[in-house]
Amino acid sequence: MNNKVKKIGILTGGGDCPGLNAVIRAVTKAAIANYGYEVIGYKFGYRGLYNNDFIKLDARSVSGILHKGGTILYSSNKDNLFDYQVEENGQCVKKDVSDVAVENMKKEGVDVLVVLGGDGTLTSARDFARKGVNVIGVPKTIDNDLSKTDVTFGFNSAVDVVVDALDKLHTTAESHHRIMILEVMGRNAGWIALHAGIAGSADVILIPEIPFSLDAIVAKMNERSQRGLPFSIIVVSEGAMEKGGELTVQKIVNDSPDPVRLGGIGNKLALALEARISDHEIRNTVLGHLQRGGITSAYDRLLSTRYGVAAVELIAQGKFGSMVALQDGKMTDASLEAVIGKNKQVDVDSELIHVAKSLGVSFGE
Amino acid sequence: MNNKVKKIGILTGGGDCPGLNAVIRAVTKAAIANYGYEVIGYKFGYRGLYNNDFIKLDARSVSGILHKGGTILYSSNKDNLFDYQVEENGQCVKKDVSDVAVENMKKEGVDVLVVLGGDGTLTSARDFARKGVNVIGVPKTIDNDLSKTDVTFGFNSAVDVVVDALDKLHTTAESHHRIMILEVMGRNAGWIALHAGIAGSADVILIPEIPFSLDAIVAKMNERSQRGLPFSIIVVSEGAMEKGGELTVQKIVNDSPDPVRLGGIGNKLALALEARISDHEIRNTVLGHLQRGGITSAYDRLLSTRYGVAAVELIAQGKFGSMVALQDGKMTDASLEAVIGKNKQVDVDSELIHVAKSLGVSFGE
Amino acid sequence: MNNKVKKIGILTGGGDCPGLNAVIRAVTKAAIANYGYEVIGYKFGYRGLYNNDFIKLDARSVSGILHKGGTILYSSNKDNLFDYQVEENGQCVKKDVSDVAVENMKKEGVDVLVVLGGDGTLTSARDFARKGVNVIGVPKTIDNDLSKTDVTFGFNSAVDVVVDALDKLHTTAESHHRIMILEVMGRNAGWIALHAGIAGSADVILIPEIPFSLDAIVAKMNERSQRGLPFSIIVVSEGAMEKGGELTVQKIVNDSPDPVRLGGIGNKLALALEARISDHEIRNTVLGHLQRGGITSAYDRLLSTRYGVAAVELIAQGKFGSMVALQDGKMTDASLEAVIGKNKQVDVDSELIHVAKSLGVSFGE
Amino acid sequence: MNNKVKKIGILTGGGDCPGLNAVIRAVTKAAIANYGYEVIGYKFGYRGLYNNDFIKLDARSVSGILHKGGTILYSSNKDNLFDYQVEENGQCVKKDVSDVAVENMKKEGVDVLVVLGGDGTLTSARDFARKGVNVIGVPKTIDNDLSKTDVTFGFNSAVDVVVDALDKLHTTAESHHRIMILEVMGRNAGWIALHAGIAGSADVILIPEIPFSLDAIVAKMNERSQRGLPFSIIVVSEGAMEKGGELTVQKIVNDSPDPVRLGGIGNKLALALEARISDHEIRNTVLGHLQRGGITSAYDRLLSTRYGVAAVELIAQGKFGSMVALQDGKMTDASLEAVIGKNKQVDVDSELIHVAKSLGVSFGE
Repeated sequence: MNNKVKKIGILTGGGDCPGLNAVIRAVTKAAIANYGYEVIGYKFGYRGLYNNDFIKLDARSVSGILHKGGTILYSSNKDNLFDYQVEENGQCVKKDVSDVAVENMKKEGVDVLVVLGGDGTLTSARDFARKGVNVIGVPKTIDNDLSKTDVTFGFNSAVDVVVDALDKLHTTAESHHRIMILEVMGRNAGWIALHAGIAGSADVILIPEIPFSLDAIVAKMNERSQRGLPFSIIVVSEGAMEKGGELTVQKIVNDSPDPVRLGGIGNKLALALEARISDHEIRNTVLGHLQRGGITSAYDRLLSTRYGVAAVELIAQGKFGSMVALQDGKMTDASLEAVIGKNKQVDVDSELIHVAKSLGVSFGE
Repeated sequence: MNNKVKKIGILTGGGDCPGLNAVIRAVTKAAIANYGYEVIGYKFGYRGLYNNDFIKLDARSVSGILHKGGTILYSSNKDNLFDYQVEENGQCVKKDVSDVAVENMKKEGVDVLVVLGGDGTLTSARDFARKGVNVIGVPKTIDNDLSKTDVTFGFNSAVDVVVDALDKLHTTAESHHRIMILEVMGRNAGWIALHAGIAGSADVILIPEIPFSLDAIVAKMNERSQRGLPFSIIVVSEGAMEKGGELTVQKIVNDSPDPVRLGGIGNKLALALEARISDHEIRNTVLGHLQRGGITSAYDRLLSTRYGVAAVELIAQGKFGSMVALQDGKMTDASLEAVIGKNKQVDVDSELIHVAKSLGVSFGE
Repeated sequence: MNNKVKKIGILTGGGDCPGLNAVIRAVTKAAIANYGYEVIGYKFGYRGLYNNDFIKLDARSVSGILHKGGTILYSSNKDNLFDYQVEENGQCVKKDVSDVAVENMKKEGVDVLVVLGGDGTLTSARDFARKGVNVIGVPKTIDNDLSKTDVTFGFNSAVDVVVDALDKLHTTAESHHRIMILEVMGRNAGWIALHAGIAGSADVILIPEIPFSLDAIVAKMNERSQRGLPFSIIVVSEGAMEKGGELTVQKIVNDSPDPVRLGGIGNKLALALEARISDHEIRNTVLGHLQRGGITSAYDRLLSTRYGVAAVELIAQGKFGSMVALQDGKMTDASLEAVIGKNKQVDVDSELIHVAKSLGVSFGE
Repeated sequence: MNNKVKKIGILTGGGDCPGLNAVIRAVTKAAIANYGYEVIGYKFGYRGLYNNDFIKLDARSVSGILHKGGTILYSSNKDNLFDYQVEENGQCVKKDVSDVAVENMKKEGVDVLVVLGGDGTLTSARDFARKGVNVIGVPKTIDNDLSKTDVTFGFNSAVDVVVDALDKLHTTAESHHRIMILEVMGRNAGWIALHAGIAGSADVILIPEIPFSLDAIVAKMNERSQRGLPFSIIVVSEGAMEKGGELTVQKIVNDSPDPVRLGGIGNKLALALEARISDHEIRNTVLGHLQRGGITSAYDRLLSTRYGVAAVELIAQGKFGSMVALQDGKMTDASLEAVIGKNKQVDVDSELIHVAKSLGVSFGE
């Protein structure tokens, strides 16, 4: 089956993420060296597939990109070709233009599409697979919340950035006896907050999987003060929520005369804690895009490279409709159908949660 | 005169800053080794002086702190003993308690007070000098906006952090063709934004010294797009202002239905640019306290150490009421009276501004 | 069984390694918080056990050490109490003093010994277990060559340092069209060279598991030159060897008039390549102890913390004579008897070797 | 005069150094933007001038290189066109080929040559100036030993790398109670060792300007041990020398049975100290090329950019035969004739030496 493959196309979708270039490089090098495939890269994710906008990839064009953040193929966040915004008769309408993409692939002789993305991008990949396109997925997300794989690439680099930020906040927290809050990525899952919180010695870790109560956080702060530690570090996932629907925090926020302080959960929490803890200054920092960029960590460079080479092996084996995956430390694959739509969350009874609690971390329960 | 000195006290005031510990260490080591002074450190700045709350400092207690951010003496932001909040008859009142501080120094036999701080903290130092206390100032501020010295300690470390953040934002800006805004410290002066903006390859640098117009920024973005560079990096000092009083930006902000987006100048600018530039996503990041913490840079460790040793020399020479200063690369001193209240701003006709413009940087003029 | 445990002792043996302090902290915190054990730390490894030289460990004494390299308990490299150098009758003799250690433990009421070390240190631990001492091992080695565990702590941090060095050498290699050699740790196994070599984009990786030939390396250099890449990066494990016993390299070294160039395999290889490749300058760098120190990586802080908490769980379960281990990403344990003396080497048919070769890496075969 | 300039050529000579690319970028951008000059870059330093081997430089070709170590124009170490090795009649001879270079410049219409280099490279620049070529020098050297300028670019980045290494060695030194030696660059001047030694908390700093005695170093080690600090960090410039011509150290080295330990001064010193201090292990690390590569520091990016823009201003002013220079913090220029051959060494009576001594640093005197 695999001997029919002559040319593969790569695209990167969704938010940029350390390791994208490392995967592009590995797929390109392994495809050419091991099987003599041609390789092209579509620009701006699926949009390039729709516009047939691509560049040829070879050893030279992927040279020197291993460590670089971002993606040499560019990316866009919301380009679902199955529900794509086009202009028709002077009006913006949404329609399924996936046939155009399939036609473009045929025209260029592209036999396989390698898609680097998270749940959204891979859902489209699955949909193309259902249309009969040969698709291979590579699990990319800062948040590490894709199922069927232990680790997504980009996650380790993001944790490094968060831990570096926590190290910085520690000195200020101690010097001023302040409560420092750091809001990190993780809309649906708290992996970044959990890993970085343990590695960065946070006192409180708030994640979407464990709804928190303001009282429990205040109690933890007070307990620390009584032990002679009148400062604290709180890491909060952007998707963390209060038990029972944020009633207390949101009420305090609503009652606040200071709209400047609004924003994400970190800001809200700062405002609410300020109303409850009078003797400490409280500061919130939102890391935001700093978690995405810069130099890719050594761990992610290796993981991304392994994913890229494994993707080429799947192509050679004709195992289409699947995603490369790391399970129990071993490179393997999973069906895209089994991956999509299944958020991988932190198990609240897991070893990691036990580890954190053993160190005295509060989850605000 | 100096042979009367037996004991010196050190305190750190204002926001924490890389290099504080390096100065404390150098003062302590040089004072003991070169002149046999005793050294104590007051805790939490002037508050410790008021409460006579201090620790003894010697070679052992300052060992291993050279590289550490923060201050082992702790700091507080608003403790002016000349207008200090105390409780009297069950009520909070503000009064001048500086005599208590002077009395405490006498009681402990402290002959000289070494004050590490910015304009606010040093203003109190000057006021103590006027009362006859032997005071030596050391110029500390992230913002580098103290007059009579070329560089304050902490500034270089802060610029390093900002440039690292800019390097990170570049990859996202390029990958997504976005406009990325980074709001940095600098309420009264744009030194951080200017140095880091040049070193971090920003396209637009907005500083308090040069009021900007929204039109000029939009024009710069458009010009870059036309040259095939549809992404930009904007560094903005927290104190940057629009020409004529923020009329345009503030109007757009006021008209916005989205209070979540409010906040500092970075957020406002993002909102205003979004209203004016339709084809690019715009993201704002506020670095905040990340600029203060972490490992002190090699440059600041050396500079802080030089300041600390120089402060001890001033004591030995009996040159009280002065601040150690770096002028034209040489260690010297300046009168506290001449330093206080004189913001050191960026000269708009300076070489650095010319350098930035030569590279194509827009200041939004 | 575990309810008999009241006090545990910790010691660190062998070369220092990032993560030691993180394990000490986690064991101490978890032991106290989860089970109310007392904890002491022996100084300088087994030597402290012999001299009954220890400090009490509690939450306060392990505060602030999570990220720090080195070990607050100090370490020594060669202290085998079963063959220990003592002075008797004015003469240095070697004898088994393990009974003294056992006696010391009894005297202090230490029920369990937690030993952080590599193969040498853990061999002694196993020997103490055979004597009936309750022992738990924690797998520490930069080299990652301990069996029965997927990853030892310290390895990730070391790889980070090596990859950072490779990034630095790349710019010089390209600018001068040079061949840059980097000698890294790995006496018996090539894990560091392999992981870092892939992540740091090395062209040649030489490891103990794959004897190299000088001809193959020269051929790789020439092939790169012919492809317009007249520079190369070679990573070599300190334990890498030439096929057939280093005949060619050693002969060139022996014939060299320049004894200054001798030293480890990196220096020898540089000399030998220089004799074979006339048109490129060749430079060797030995990373040495730089691989051990500094800030512990986020990954290693988390892994070390997990190991530390797991060690306490093993104590609570009474599973003595075992080592905490990471297998397939899961915390588990292995018998010390099964671990000792079994070097974990790189499988030459493994996925990682295939990945490297797919990228064009030569192993000098 | 300056209105005659139409085209400028840039070349980089000598060892690579952080900031070369930043200067190339700044010269190119400022030349085009401010004066409309054309810019070309000769490859491999003077060799490219001889071979007329160059690339056109414009805003696009210098985009994205600001932070990168190395040089996009490549460099070579020993290409003096006034004494150049050429093949004549099948034989290698050395001759003055500078006329060929002048001819090449004329042929291409290159009016000015901008030379980035240290003393050797700038000596050639001065010789071309004597021949009537319009030359501008830019002071590049890791070692900071060029006269007439306070700081050369690359120096700050090198110091950062050395201080990072010292931070790493500290943890090992403390954990094992070892003496760790770090050999750093500085053949003729000790600037790197002095700056990094103070910033990295070295106990002994050995520089070419202050010949050392083995006895003094041993005494310092012993004094530290007696104060309960049985470990030390020694930074040694590669050009450091023993008083009276290395008699003691060299004698110990000559008597050593272990030729493997030979090499630079760091190795020799390790061997000599081992013979004199029995109770501590001693380890030497040679940083070597790691001091040259990697990411350029924020400080050097700014300094290099200032130098580049200033070089263009000198061209516009027709101030040929000069070098851009930083004096007392201000951009200015100096005559190449005044710069060449005058090593800038550390003044043994300077403030920096006093600072180091105040902290207890020994210079081995």
